[in-house]
Amino acid sequence: MTTQPSAPQLPAPDPAEGRRVFAEDRAHLFHSWAAQGAVNPIPVAGAAGRHFWDYEGKRYLDFSSQFINLNIGHAHPKVVAAIKEQADRICMIASTFANDKRGEAARLITELAPGDLNHVFFTNGGADANEHAVRMARMHTGRPKVLSTYRSYHGGTATAISLTGDPRRWANERSGSATGNIAHFFGPYLYRSHFHATTEAEESARALAHLAEVIEFEGPATIAAILLETVVGTAGILVPPPGYLAGVRALCDTYGIVFIADEVMSGFGRAGEWFAVDHWGVTPDLITFAKGVNSGYVPLGGVIVSDAIHETFREVVYPGGLTYSGHPLACAAAVATITAMKEEGIVENAARIGEDVLGPGLRELAERHPSIGEVRGLGVFWAVELVRNRETREMLVPYAAGAGQTGPVDEVVAGCKERGMWPVYNFNRIHLVPPCTITDDEARQGLEILDAALDAADKYVD
Amino acid sequence: MTTQPSAPQLPAPDPAEGRRVFAEDRAHLFHSWAAQGAVNPIPVAGAAGRHFWDYEGKRYLDFSSQFINLNIGHAHPKVVAAIKEQADRICMIASTFANDKRGEAARLITELAPGDLNHVFFTNGGADANEHAVRMARMHTGRPKVLSTYRSYHGGTATAISLTGDPRRWANERSGSATGNIAHFFGPYLYRSHFHATTEAEESARALAHLAEVIEFEGPATIAAILLETVVGTAGILVPPPGYLAGVRALCDTYGIVFIADEVMSGFGRAGEWFAVDHWGVTPDLITFAKGVNSGYVPLGGVIVSDAIHETFREVVYPGGLTYSGHPLACAAAVATITAMKEEGIVENAARIGEDVLGPGLRELAERHPSIGEVRGLGVFWAVELVRNRETREMLVPYAAGAGQTGPVDEVVAGCKERGMWPVYNFNRIHLVPPCTITDDEARQGLEILDAALDAADKYVD
Ligand SMILES: Cc1ncc(COP(=O)(O)O)c(C=O)c1O
Ligand SMILES: Cc1ncc(COP(=O)(O)O)c(C=O)c1O
Repeated sequence: MTTQPSAPQLPAPDPAEGRRVFAEDRAHLFHSWAAQGAVNPIPVAGAAGRHFWDYEGKRYLDFSSQFINLNIGHAHPKVVAAIKEQADRICMIASTFANDKRGEAARLITELAPGDLNHVFFTNGGADANEHAVRMARMHTGRPKVLSTYRSYHGGTATAISLTGDPRRWANERSGSATGNIAHFFGPYLYRSHFHATTEAEESARALAHLAEVIEFEGPATIAAILLETVVGTAGILVPPPGYLAGVRALCDTYGIVFIADEVMSGFGRAGEWFAVDHWGVTPDLITFAKGVNSGYVPLGGVIVSDAIHETFREVVYPGGLTYSGHPLACAAAVATITAMKEEGIVENAARIGEDVLGPGLRELAERHPSIGEVRGLGVFWAVELVRNRETREMLVPYAAGAGQTGPVDEVVAGCKERGMWPVYNFNRIHLVPPCTITDDEARQGLEILDAALDAADKYVD
Repeated sequence: MTTQPSAPQLPAPDPAEGRRVFAEDRAHLFHSWAAQGAVNPIPVAGAAGRHFWDYEGKRYLDFSSQFINLNIGHAHPKVVAAIKEQADRICMIASTFANDKRGEAARLITELAPGDLNHVFFTNGGADANEHAVRMARMHTGRPKVLSTYRSYHGGTATAISLTGDPRRWANERSGSATGNIAHFFGPYLYRSHFHATTEAEESARALAHLAEVIEFEGPATIAAILLETVVGTAGILVPPPGYLAGVRALCDTYGIVFIADEVMSGFGRAGEWFAVDHWGVTPDLITFAKGVNSGYVPLGGVIVSDAIHETFREVVYPGGLTYSGHPLACAAAVATITAMKEEGIVENAARIGEDVLGPGLRELAERHPSIGEVRGLGVFWAVELVRNRETREMLVPYAAGAGQTGPVDEVVAGCKERGMWPVYNFNRIHLVPPCTITDDEARQGLEILDAALDAADKYVD
């Protein structure tokens, strides 16, 4: 179903060039989320389809989609062609002007979005998409506060990192870089239920009761928005139980709260639908997106805006913006990406791979590896949760594990990489998040490598 | 000196396509800094060099550089070629990995930067560059507060809009979208001196005394950073008087405060130097950049980091990041842009145009147009300040002017546009900020159009 070769021919290795690229990186690049002294990046020489390779001639099956953004895979010929064509036409025109690709991208995105989400504000990425969505919600409601979940990541700018629940928020709070007007609550997560629930229905009902009580005590009249990752990504690939999102929608309706779905990671095929909310038939008031919209070939993000919120800003000036809003080159890449995904059935492929290969394959691994506590996911969006003990569910490495505590998971990850597969990991979890274009064979290869690498984790099971 | 034609051949007009592009924009695009009902964008069909044109066959001389980002002009063949070449090689690789173009761009930027500014953290644009710079400064010093000027714009995300001094901050503060830990002070601006100064030397000394007293009362031990636009852009094209920046540097040294220069607008040739700080021989601790670094052909921004601040994060994790940090396509465009600017003497051209054509030409206009209160600038970075009365210096439209108050300046701008020149404006000022590649003839054409358009302003002089 894809136009790309499954196992691309590699060019001749060039280790000297690899060493030069590495040295230039270490001399001049400041890396994110890292102690600079510990940074040790592999120089990447090339990439195609579901593979990338280094200068030594080693090839990796990309089960990370880089930062879970390359939903269409590397070097998709149609997207590359569209970028080259647009570069010859016009790279950048200010958002003061109308531009054909900008308008077309907005139309295509709104056509895919549910309900009356008919308008798009374009940003550069996911963090600023959330910044702008929250600003819209605050002005739309005239209320300051935003609720988000403890298990979440929403980006690196001040509002986005303050909304984030995961430990990356802490150093920012300590140093004075966080904002006020944010409160965190617990979302559903049956495997480690905050609500002492034992069934999905119970988890859903209790998580909603918890949220309702948080709203009551924070004060409905203070709350502009509830911001949720539809399927929580980095913080666990947590698929909401049936009824949960509809319940959030109902609470928002009751209290006049704006429902913002962060689909930066879960959107554009990752969860096997164009938007993850499509699984549950729920329509938020705002959807934030980035990553998959053009697979990150050119930086792009944005907010999809309902008619009602757009109406608020018909007469009132929207007090936000950025130089590259609606960047034509980025929008041309989005048009080509969405079009290719439709033509090649790429979203359907993601759904099918999840149902037919990754889901069953991972569950089969769980039968044989005692270190697997739970397998969960959908589409090409899967987590394997590693434990020391299936009864106690003690995490193989603890929450917020720092240097010196991550050994057992590091071993699994190293085992995958040695064998030529590049996964994502977070504390005690391995995430399997390949491009939506992955073939059955490639998915099976990835599972085989994971199978071998998991022996390292099994050693730690007591 | 430039490889581009001065007056490109226009394709055949296509008004029907223009109407279609306009309609799609109005149906689906949410615009920045605007009431959506008042948005009326001209559809742009193409652009080259210092011109862009619409679908009706009307051509504009671009005295805006779009959002003051297209320092190299539209459709520069070397940058376009580099983007196409890189698109064929690799569009996006996560910043986990080393990439040749990312490293090369970082090296070229640090080679241009003064002093020991040897490391680059790449972002998507200017706002997030400032977010990250402030975070670095807070963690480096262990202090929370940042000082910035009332006359400034620093971007649209929470930290950046809170640092901003101009009225775009207000609605964000009202709605709860601003952060704490920020205090504003007054910078030098002799024409409207906050310090009752009458000479540049007096303005510089008094502005420094003001800043010193603000530091004393805010508490040096609370202050992480002073953030300044080296040459204030949108808020007035305010060129600092001799001694001012050195004085700020000295105050920062005395109190252990990080000096952040926001060169998002003033950098990469705009002020006739690679960085505007080069005019005054001052080395900040952090420089933020975007726009001119690759002229916005692909979204890119970043922070240039001193050895000392880099050292702080050798063992300590830097708690920030973004999906597209060091985006290879954006970095390839930066490498090509910087290289072409060197090869073609584009920074030198900007300096010369300012000294030989725009500066003298605008001062000559000031002699004939009583509405011109002051002309100031350098390089391709000029402001014409319009007044009702040269004695009282009453602004032609007031500060923070809203709908209904901007008429006289709107007339001047409309006069420019009618005659085929596209300027920037802000309250009572017209900004003349063409690409650095502008030719003498084009600069003179722009001045002639401005000359004719200014008659509309002269009518309001009493
Ligand atoms: C759910 C979610 N929201 C927001 C973001 C932030 O996006 P960006 O890194 O483009 O700022 C991410 C990035 O991983 C994400 O996963
Ligand atoms: C001085 C300055 N800083 C920061 C910014 C924000 O940059 P961006 O719009 O890319 O976020 C701008 C934008 O005009 C600017 O002029």
